[in-house]
Amino acid sequence: MELGKVKDFEPIFYPNSVAVVGASQNKKKMGSIYIQCLLDAGFKGRLYAVGAKEGKSWGLPIYRNLRAIPESIDYVIVAIPKKFIPDLLDDCAAIGAKVVQIFSAGFSESGSEEGRRLEAELTRKALNLGLRIIGPNCVGVYCPESGMHLPRPMPRQEGRGSVAFICQSGGHTANFAEVGLARGIKFSKVVSFGNGCDLDSIDFLEYFAVDPETKIISAYLEGIKDGPRFVDVIKEVSKTKPVIVWKGGRTEAGAEAARSHTAAIASSDAIWAAALKQAGAIKVESLEELADTTLAFQYLPRVEGNRAAIIAGIGGAGGGACVAASDACLSQGLEVPPLAEETISRLKAILPPDGSIFRNPVDVGAIALFRDVKYLFQPMELTIKDPGIDVLIIDTPISQLIGPLSEQGYDAVLDTFIALGKAQSKPLIVVLSPLLREAEWAAMRKKLAQVQIPVYSTFDRAAKAIANVIQYWKFRAETDEEAA
Amino acid sequence: MELGKVKDFEPIFYPNSVAVVGASQNKKKMGSIYIQCLLDAGFKGRLYAVGAKEGKSWGLPIYRNLRAIPESIDYVIVAIPKKFIPDLLDDCAAIGAKVVQIFSAGFSESGSEEGRRLEAELTRKALNLGLRIIGPNCVGVYCPESGMHLPRPMPRQEGRGSVAFICQSGGHTANFAEVGLARGIKFSKVVSFGNGCDLDSIDFLEYFAVDPETKIISAYLEGIKDGPRFVDVIKEVSKTKPVIVWKGGRTEAGAEAARSHTAAIASSDAIWAAALKQAGAIKVESLEELADTTLAFQYLPRVEGNRAAIIAGIGGAGGGACVAASDACLSQGLEVPPLAEETISRLKAILPPDGSIFRNPVDVGAIALFRDVKYLFQPMELTIKDPGIDVLIIDTPISQLIGPLSEQGYDAVLDTFIALGKAQSKPLIVVLSPLLREAEWAAMRKKLAQVQIPVYSTFDRAAKAIANVIQYWKFRAETDEEAA
Repeated sequence: MELGKVKDFEPIFYPNSVAVVGASQNKKKMGSIYIQCLLDAGFKGRLYAVGAKEGKSWGLPIYRNLRAIPESIDYVIVAIPKKFIPDLLDDCAAIGAKVVQIFSAGFSESGSEEGRRLEAELTRKALNLGLRIIGPNCVGVYCPESGMHLPRPMPRQEGRGSVAFICQSGGHTANFAEVGLARGIKFSKVVSFGNGCDLDSIDFLEYFAVDPETKIISAYLEGIKDGPRFVDVIKEVSKTKPVIVWKGGRTEAGAEAARSHTAAIASSDAIWAAALKQAGAIKVESLEELADTTLAFQYLPRVEGNRAAIIAGIGGAGGGACVAASDACLSQGLEVPPLAEETISRLKAILPPDGSIFRNPVDVGAIALFRDVKYLFQPMELTIKDPGIDVLIIDTPISQLIGPLSEQGYDAVLDTFIALGKAQSKPLIVVLSPLLREAEWAAMRKKLAQVQIPVYSTFDRAAKAIANVIQYWKFRAETDEEAA
Repeated sequence: MELGKVKDFEPIFYPNSVAVVGASQNKKKMGSIYIQCLLDAGFKGRLYAVGAKEGKSWGLPIYRNLRAIPESIDYVIVAIPKKFIPDLLDDCAAIGAKVVQIFSAGFSESGSEEGRRLEAELTRKALNLGLRIIGPNCVGVYCPESGMHLPRPMPRQEGRGSVAFICQSGGHTANFAEVGLARGIKFSKVVSFGNGCDLDSIDFLEYFAVDPETKIISAYLEGIKDGPRFVDVIKEVSKTKPVIVWKGGRTEAGAEAARSHTAAIASSDAIWAAALKQAGAIKVESLEELADTTLAFQYLPRVEGNRAAIIAGIGGAGGGACVAASDACLSQGLEVPPLAEETISRLKAILPPDGSIFRNPVDVGAIALFRDVKYLFQPMELTIKDPGIDVLIIDTPISQLIGPLSEQGYDAVLDTFIALGKAQSKPLIVVLSPLLREAEWAAMRKKLAQVQIPVYSTFDRAAKAIANVIQYWKFRAETDEEAA
């Protein structure tokens, strides 16, 4: 059955051929944008353009209709006015299409009688014709491996990824893909399903559960059709892969907006929160928290507990950071326990007495400024190896690394983090506020990403992400035990 | 008395002469960093270097001691080991110094008997000698107008500012100054006072209350010596200027860290929250919220109520943004009320029916993509002028402006925002997620800043900042009424 599921979804994420209906020589039409993006992404299958006017563009002929294409087509992208779509489905079936993705809007989400009727009609028709629908009112699929792409220009993802994203909103889909690129999240597959008249969140969740490329599942949802089944599926999936859910429409006004957006009935936030928690899913409240948490799952090993150690003051001025970091951790339910006496006495033997703070958080008191950067490694290693510590968070504003340390080069500091990451197995996170140095920040993030160290720009966001990861591993410890 | 206060603080922010004790030909010494930063900032007074070894650096002679300087000195910056400082105070007095700022650490914040004794000694001695102390364990003063500067290299602020920042932590002081530069916050004056053995938060608060350059007061505090008086002062100041307070050490672990950092006794968060609220201060929870809120106060006119209108979907794909924006507003206590029927019927006459959402939030349905950007102005103006609306928030990810709209140029969209800002008097905020376009984001922020439109990178942060501003104006409405 699992293999069947993987096979069923192949034409969605790895189609041999795609036709875009609604292409034109006008590069600003949605169909044209789809074609351009597929070409830019190096789509590995065969690509066909279909438009109202014959012609040639991108070196491709523009066909007047689907039936004129000289081969069968796996996947059809539709970006034409809604009234033409039911008839188009006959053409899709005629050329052997397996999946029809409908970008076009104006269906049930419009709240109009006509929209609802039209959506019901195309759903019924697709079922009869044996077509699967993604949408309507959606942007479709992104799969870096096959070159399937959203209608938004983006740089190519470097290498393959393990994060799947299921999303009810087209805007959030593209934004999350972009945020992922900026933050180092690597996607296996992304799907936007809009109104979800046929394939919807549960279908994709079940697929990603068995997709061998996917290790982490993130989702943005506004409403679901079969709540109890959805929770059952999540509970099953969570036993092997983390599921992170951002639920839109959690307030009354948000739910109103969701109804207009994807025709979703958003139920009470409290019900969702309880159901998701029970099912082992991680509930987040914003796109940023979704990205932060996904990133933490992507990089961090299993976390065994919630006892955090904090190090600040590399390059000096760490006192305030220690206070803010403690506040952030405790606000998120992390503990910041005292270090072992032996750890503290060994720290005292290394760090300068004035300006250092010998507790947890540890303020390393500008040691890296006044002595060689290599002296940083030892206090960090002592702290992370303390037996009462589950995770180490290092906090430093970027200016402390670039300014006074610039002679030794901030690379030397990052190399110390990397060496630490390699020398031990507990999770290590770096909080690096970019301040005025966005470009250097991006380079540092990238360097640390190579050794699976996630970088956050604020402590609050890091603490929230870590707390979410810890919540999942606590659930896993319980379910693993039940299963044993 | 007010004039007296302004006069008293002149040597702190506008000294005629500054001596830095602890300078050296070694550019990495703190004293040397102070001198370099003062020179880079174009400090307008006369500058003297004092160090253990005679010599010349930066074209300045390095004096062996303060008494060798051939004129009297207003302000002395001290960055030498703590044990030499009590004796140094005699030299300070001898050359007529009014203020001594002590960077050096290792005093009461160290928790050691020696540190406490030394701090008590220098406090007593300064009092006897008629010297005012800033610190110890602090980075001092930043005043873009006079060129007084923190020991961290930063670009110069463009033009004069109206934001004062009072800060117990040196790291947060420099970080907030940098964040301000990145975000468009313009400072009148910034002061870090560390352990605050003499001048402390209340003194600076009273000064900024009467400083004519200062319109907004932001603060980071870990503890205060005289709680009831502090609250009384804030209550008085809040009647004319907003006071925004980030309180560090609000959790137990944070309070522990604060004790080691600036020797502050942080009292319970609940007590602070109640006292600050009653006094009309705005309590924030992080450096980011402090910056976001300060920025909103700097740019926005008085806000009359908490009824927000939201516009999304410029360039398309606004549905998910509408849901997230509603959730964010309601979570922060803003209302997102229905628009007037007349507003909605007029919107329907302008916007395309499919893909638009005609309620609050308004999804403008890619109108700017498929028609000329100039059609954007009308729906925005209709929405902000709705009589049931107090504030308009426009939300758009940057890719929607740069991608498909690039032919017309995103400048055309920004010009529409600017025209709207000029055409009416209600507060207007733009939420612009930077995604992969940090450089363009910074340029857009700068352009909108010129017409007092604040830009936020996430809706959550914008909603929180606006809610904070509304809270202040509600307090003001009550106190203004009492006074009338």
